Amino acid sequence: MSLLEKTIQSIKGQDNESRAAALKRLESLTMPHWALGQLMDLAMDLAGITGSPRPSFPSKSVVVMAADHGVAARGTSLYPIEVTRQMVYNFVRGGAGINAIASVCGARVIVADMGIAGERLNIQKENFIDARIAPGTRDFLVQPAMTREQAIESIESGIRIFRSIEADTDLLGTGDMGIGNTTSSSAIASVLTGLPPADVTGRGTGIDDKQLKLKTELIEMDIRARQPDRNDGLSVLSSIGGFEIGGIAGLVLGAASAGKPVLIDGFISTAGALIAHSLSPAVSQYLIAAHMSVETGHKAMLDLLELSPLLDLDFRLGEGTGAAMAMPLVDAAARLLTDVATFEEASVSRNE
Amino acid sequence: MSLLEKTIQSIKGQDNESRAAALKRLESLTMPHWALGQLMDLAMDLAGITGSPRPSFPSKSVVVMAADHGVAARGTSLYPIEVTRQMVYNFVRGGAGINAIASVCGARVIVADMGIAGERLNIQKENFIDARIAPGTRDFLVQPAMTREQAIESIESGIRIFRSIEADTDLLGTGDMGIGNTTSSSAIASVLTGLPPADVTGRGTGIDDKQLKLKTELIEMDIRARQPDRNDGLSVLSSIGGFEIGGIAGLVLGAASAGKPVLIDGFISTAGALIAHSLSPAVSQYLIAAHMSVETGHKAMLDLLELSPLLDLDFRLGEGTGAAMAMPLVDAAARLLTDVATFEEASVSRNE
Repeated sequence: MSLLEKTIQSIKGQDNESRAAALKRLESLTMPHWALGQLMDLAMDLAGITGSPRPSFPSKSVVVMAADHGVAARGTSLYPIEVTRQMVYNFVRGGAGINAIASVCGARVIVADMGIAGERLNIQKENFIDARIAPGTRDFLVQPAMTREQAIESIESGIRIFRSIEADTDLLGTGDMGIGNTTSSSAIASVLTGLPPADVTGRGTGIDDKQLKLKTELIEMDIRARQPDRNDGLSVLSSIGGFEIGGIAGLVLGAASAGKPVLIDGFISTAGALIAHSLSPAVSQYLIAAHMSVETGHKAMLDLLELSPLLDLDFRLGEGTGAAMAMPLVDAAARLLTDVATFEEASVSRNE
Repeated sequence: MSLLEKTIQSIKGQDNESRAAALKRLESLTMPHWALGQLMDLAMDLAGITGSPRPSFPSKSVVVMAADHGVAARGTSLYPIEVTRQMVYNFVRGGAGINAIASVCGARVIVADMGIAGERLNIQKENFIDARIAPGTRDFLVQPAMTREQAIESIESGIRIFRSIEADTDLLGTGDMGIGNTTSSSAIASVLTGLPPADVTGRGTGIDDKQLKLKTELIEMDIRARQPDRNDGLSVLSSIGGFEIGGIAGLVLGAASAGKPVLIDGFISTAGALIAHSLSPAVSQYLIAAHMSVETGHKAMLDLLELSPLLDLDFRLGEGTGAAMAMPLVDAAARLLTDVATFEEASVSRNE
């Protein structure tokens, strides 16, 4: 059995006993019933995911999956393709948005080259992982973005990367970097939600109306040309995906199989989560939607996963910034289960 | 000149030079333009409030103002009046929701008795302040909640409490505890927004439809009976307010006069902020709305202050829980100004 098959087989779904124990505790805390709303829903999920009614998350990691896209040559991004590579150097030096937010939120940032265009990156740092599959995908209007073998390889690399950090990761956040990757993610969103490309295609780095129209039309042509099988996540990933998207799918599967919660970031990460979900529907029980992206279509993708985002701050950066920003909420939710007294413990009068 | 007058006079509003410097920096960071949305708006406010283009907030405090209300005897809360006192003991022992969240978010919790019913509390702890004005307000259907002198005293106590913690407080969060205080806050919201009580009266601790109808009708009768002058914050506070609400108004005025940002929590804290705003409209420039409360009418109050909330998590607890939960967002916003590299610094290609 392959690593991918074994991983999928070991994803069990949430533990109902721990969820029930958490619910009982939450309902007896010294506050009006469910007065901390979504944080209490989250606390129940954390208990279910970890199989513990008293979970805690001292070690946090954000993995930024980086890769390039053949479709970037179309000019539907405002930035040149070399920005993917340049930003990876920025990440490992600590100068990007994700570094600032992760530092506030107590997470380390790990960057993986899943397939950046050009030469292999010359980075010898602990927080950098070279897992490149090829120097970028192919333009999927012309041919599939990658082979089926490469699709499996990208997902299995993601699983292996998760396993390599598992011992130091109680809570995982996903992140992405890749010029052109909103095009690939919109195409995935369209195929897997069944919505037309116009409903799930947004402005990415900030393109104007004319560029958005072109981007949408190209995605329609891409899907017609590739005809991915929406019931087969590997077909979708290989036809119109990206190496970093496969890597994110692997992270999600790896964490779910280990019973650890995954904060999925925005549009690209959710595309990766959708690929994972199409391979193993139970993964959605391990996912926490960090935030609602500005990018059109994110809501439809989260709806398919039956997830409600924690934050809505008009983020559209990726890199895992939303995932990192939501980590204190996960800590706070967990602390409700361990730190807050019940009416009985605190001798507070109950609702009469 | 009184402490209140002096404090009001020293509130200047945001520093435009620091805002402009922050804007310039934010627009050159290695990310698509304004890709971290509300966090970047917040970063500009933090620069304007502190008068520094590189602000930082290592020391954080949440002050929970506690008091009782004559209106609580009406039975419009699900909890008996002694819960205010019992919860204060819970706060100082560290067993409440605010303690769990503040601990995650790096804030200390300070509790002030502004006027709890019954005997003086017997608490000898560093994080407890005895600033009681009277053992609860009077039922404002029958007579004003407090005298005008007591209204001034409650606000000046809030200013003094802020000053006593100012040296260790770079970022302040406000909080409240007081059975019956949504009734007072709804009355304040109705008078100051000009909306009918039905539009700004919610379920508080979780009352049913019948109790909500009664609560709303009583608030209509209260306002008719008291006729507070909406152009005079002291008239509103003394007629239909509470001692903790005056205390929160004082905290807000004190922090604004010191050029420090204030995260206002939910419904009750915003009522306090509205009283401060009616005395000194410039205070709103120092306020950050932490979250959108479940309580009906909170949005109308934030609109009056021209504030957008950072979080929307279905909280309706008070205690400063929303304010504490938003503190990592303030830290992250500030770190955008200090930790993230510009395109030039990181040698990343710009938008062409």
